[in-house]
Amino acid sequence: MPRYDTVSFLSDYGLADEFVGVVKAVIRDLAPHVAVIDLTHEIPPHDIRAGALALARCIQYVPSGVVLAVVDPGVGTARRALAVEIAGGAGVVVAPDNGLIAPAVAMAGGPGAAVVLTNTEYHLAAPGATFAGRDVFAPVAAQLCNGVSLAELGEPIDPAELVPGVIPVPRQEAEEVVAEVLWVDHFGNAELNLGPEDVAGWDGVARLRWGDEVRTATVVTTYDEIGPGAIGLVLDSYGLLAVSLMRRSAADELGLAAGTEIRLSPAGAGRSRGRPDEGLTTPVALRPADGSRERSR
Amino acid sequence: MPRYDTVSFLSDYGLADEFVGVVKAVIRDLAPHVAVIDLTHEIPPHDIRAGALALARCIQYVPSGVVLAVVDPGVGTARRALAVEIAGGAGVVVAPDNGLIAPAVAMAGGPGAAVVLTNTEYHLAAPGATFAGRDVFAPVAAQLCNGVSLAELGEPIDPAELVPGVIPVPRQEAEEVVAEVLWVDHFGNAELNLGPEDVAGWDGVARLRWGDEVRTATVVTTYDEIGPGAIGLVLDSYGLLAVSLMRRSAADELGLAAGTEIRLSPAGAGRSRGRPDEGLTTPVALRPADGSRERSR
Amino acid sequence: MPRYDTVSFLSDYGLADEFVGVVKAVIRDLAPHVAVIDLTHEIPPHDIRAGALALARCIQYVPSGVVLAVVDPGVGTARRALAVEIAGGAGVVVAPDNGLIAPAVAMAGGPGAAVVLTNTEYHLAAPGATFAGRDVFAPVAAQLCNGVSLAELGEPIDPAELVPGVIPVPRQEAEEVVAEVLWVDHFGNAELNLGPEDVAGWDGVARLRWGDEVRTATVVTTYDEIGPGAIGLVLDSYGLLAVSLMRRSAADELGLAAGTEIRLSPAGAGRSRGRPDEGLTTPVALRPADGSRERSR
Repeated sequence: MPRYDTVSFLSDYGLADEFVGVVKAVIRDLAPHVAVIDLTHEIPPHDIRAGALALARCIQYVPSGVVLAVVDPGVGTARRALAVEIAGGAGVVVAPDNGLIAPAVAMAGGPGAAVVLTNTEYHLAAPGATFAGRDVFAPVAAQLCNGVSLAELGEPIDPAELVPGVIPVPRQEAEEVVAEVLWVDHFGNAELNLGPEDVAGWDGVARLRWGDEVRTATVVTTYDEIGPGAIGLVLDSYGLLAVSLMRRSAADELGLAAGTEIRLSPAGAGRSRGRPDEGLTTPVALRPADGSRERSR
Repeated sequence: MPRYDTVSFLSDYGLADEFVGVVKAVIRDLAPHVAVIDLTHEIPPHDIRAGALALARCIQYVPSGVVLAVVDPGVGTARRALAVEIAGGAGVVVAPDNGLIAPAVAMAGGPGAAVVLTNTEYHLAAPGATFAGRDVFAPVAAQLCNGVSLAELGEPIDPAELVPGVIPVPRQEAEEVVAEVLWVDHFGNAELNLGPEDVAGWDGVARLRWGDEVRTATVVTTYDEIGPGAIGLVLDSYGLLAVSLMRRSAADELGLAAGTEIRLSPAGAGRSRGRPDEGLTTPVALRPADGSRERSR
Repeated sequence: MPRYDTVSFLSDYGLADEFVGVVKAVIRDLAPHVAVIDLTHEIPPHDIRAGALALARCIQYVPSGVVLAVVDPGVGTARRALAVEIAGGAGVVVAPDNGLIAPAVAMAGGPGAAVVLTNTEYHLAAPGATFAGRDVFAPVAAQLCNGVSLAELGEPIDPAELVPGVIPVPRQEAEEVVAEVLWVDHFGNAELNLGPEDVAGWDGVARLRWGDEVRTATVVTTYDEIGPGAIGLVLDSYGLLAVSLMRRSAADELGLAAGTEIRLSPAGAGRSRGRPDEGLTTPVALRPADGSRERSR
C-alpha cells in the first residue's frame, strides 16, 4: 500500500557524474509511482554544514513524502544511517547521522520515531561500501514510499540522540554584532546569520567591517533599491539579511565567501551615514545575540 | 478540474543552489499531478536577452501546458508579473514582464489574454520580496494547472503592452553583412543572427571578419564536413548559421562570445577562395537585412 | 498500447543549454506517460569513451524501458542511428552506433534485435542536421514507449555489427601491473581498470608509479580508513579500485586524470612497506592481465 509519492533529494554528488541518476534509477525501479524532486546536488563535496543550511532553507517547502539527504564523508564507517519521521509522519528523512539533517528536522517540528537502517534486506548488494546513496538510502527511500514501516528498516533509536547541526550564532562585541556569511548564492548574495530584528533601530544604515574593509550598507527589500555602486543589506527570501549589490555579485566584488566574518554596527541618523571611516561614539542598545535562531532550528 | 499537466521551466537560477528545487517542490505541493520539464536554468544571471533567445529556441518544442520563465533582475520592484495565454489557450506563459518572453510568445503566434498577477491570494506569504519564482510564479503556475482561470489571478492587460524583446538584426554595410553572435553553445558553436538565405549566392564560402581576424568559412550541414583546421558555417538545429569547428570549440579557439560582431562577405567562385586577405572587388546583391527575423519573433 | 514508461537518458549535452530540456519536451509531447531519468549530461563533449564507461557503470541499475544515449560527434554523417533490444526486450537502447553503447549492451547480456533508424516518419522535420537527439533519438524513444515496434523504425541489422567500445585493459610488465585511470569522479577519486583480484596476495599494500611519482597506497574499503596524508586504493561502488584520499581530491592533489597510466606493484609484507623508493626484489605471481574484464563488457 503506497504511503508516499514524492522523494525530495539533496546531495553533494554533483551533476557531472551519474550518481544522482543511478539513485533515481534505483528509486524508479523499486517504486515506479514516485516522483523525485531534486533540491540540489551541488552542495560542496563533504560540506555537511552547507548541506544542513540548504536543507533547512528548503524544508518548509518540501512536499509530504520522503526527504533523501546525502552528504556523507564518513560513508561505510560507523556513522549511522537513519530514517527519521517528521511532522507527525507526513514525512520521513533518510540520511546519514552526521549533523546534516538536524537543523531541518528541528525546523519541521523536531524528530518523531527514528531508526538506524540496520536491516540489510532492504539494501542493495554492492561490490563496495562507498555509495550508500545507491545501496542503502535510495532503496530505503523507495520502500518507505511503498509503505514499508520504519520498524522493518532497523533498530529504533532515541531521536534526541541525533548528531546536532552546527549553525553559527551571531555575538555582540562592544557595539558591533559579529556575524558570519552562511551562504553565497548563485547571484553572489552573501546571506548572514542575522535577521532584520538584529538591525532594528539602526535607521536602516549599517557599517560593515570585514578583513581590511569598512563599508556602509543600506537595509532594503529589493536588489534594485540598492542602486549602482552601493551595498545593500537585503531581506532575503528566508528572512535573513544578505549583503548584496544591484545586479552584480557581492561575493565576487567584495571578497565574501561562506564563513567570512562580518562586523556590523549602526551607521544611521546622527552617525557617520555615508562616512564609513568615521568612528562610532554613541553606544547603542542591541538585541543580545542570544542564539534563539539556532535553537529554533 | 485540472487544465494542464506540464510546466516547462526556464530560469537563471543555476543548479548550485536549491532555488530550482524549491520552485518544483512548491508546484508538487500545490499540483501533484504536474510534471516539470527543465528547459534550462543556466541562463547567465540577469541576462534577459540570453533567456529570451533560449526560450524562443525552445518554444516550438514545448508541450501544451504552462511555461514558467524567470530571469528577473527587477524582482520585487514595479516590473509586472504576468500570465499570458498562447496558442489559443494551449499554453500559458508565466513570467516577469521585462522582455524575456516576448520573442517566444511571438513565435507561438502572439499573445492571447494576459493578466498582471495582482491577486496575492494565489501567492505564498514570504519573509522577503526576492524570490518571486517561489512565492509568485510557482504557485500561479501550479494553480493554472489546477484549472484556476487567468481572470482569477489578476487584472487583465492589453497583450500589446508586453515589454518587447530585443533581438539584434543583421545589417548591410558596403558588401559586408554585419552579424552578431547570438549564443555560444556547450560545444562552442557560435550561432549568428543569420540564416542560410543570408549567404545564398555566395557559392558556399564566406569571408569572416571580427576583431583583427580575417578567416574563410565553408557553409556545411554537419560538423564533420568542416574538416580539421577549417572553419564551418553550419546550418544549426534552429535554422541559423553557426560558426563551428570540427569536434572542437569555435568559441574558445576563435575568441567568440555572445555579442561578438562578425562581418561576412562572399568569398566564393571567382573570388579570393582560400586567400582571405585579398580585397573583394565585385559587388554582390545581398538580401537586405530587413529585420524580418526579428519581426517574426 | 504503451510498452515502456521510463526513458533513462545520458548525453554530453551539458546542462547550460536547453538541449536536454528540448529532448525531454519532445518525449513529453509524444509520450506523456513517460518519466525521464537523467543519468548524466556532463559527459565531456564528444568523449565517446567516457560516455561508454558511464553508461556501463549505470546499466545494471537502469529500470526497464528505453535507454537514450547521445554522445554523437559524427551527427548528421554516415554514422548509423540505432535501436537495440537488450535483456530479452526488457529494454531498448537508442543511440548512435559509434562505440558508445557496446560496453553497456554487453553488460546487459548482449544485443538482441537491432535496427537502423531509417524510417523518417518517426523523426521530426528539422531545419538542420545537427541535433539528432531532438529530431531522431527523442521521438524514436517516445514511440518505442508508445509501443511502436523496432521493425517499424528501420532496417534490421546484425547486432554483431555494432561498433565495439574501447575499454583499456591492464597489462603486466615485469613485476608491475600497468593500469589506467578510467574515470575521475566528482570527489576526485581516480578509478582504475583494476579489480581487487588484481592486487590479491599483495598484503594490502601497493607501490604506485606515475609520471615522476612513486607512492605507497593501502587497499581499504572506506575513504575514512585511508587516514590523513595517506593514499588509499578503495574498492569503489562498481567493484574497481580507485586511487583516493580521505575527504580530499586525489585527482587534484596527485595530478591524476582520465587516461593517466599508473604502474602498480606489491609493497606488502617482507617488502618496502612504507619505504616506497626501495627496490622490489622478490618476483610475485600475478594474475595475468588477460582482458577478461573487457570481454565481459
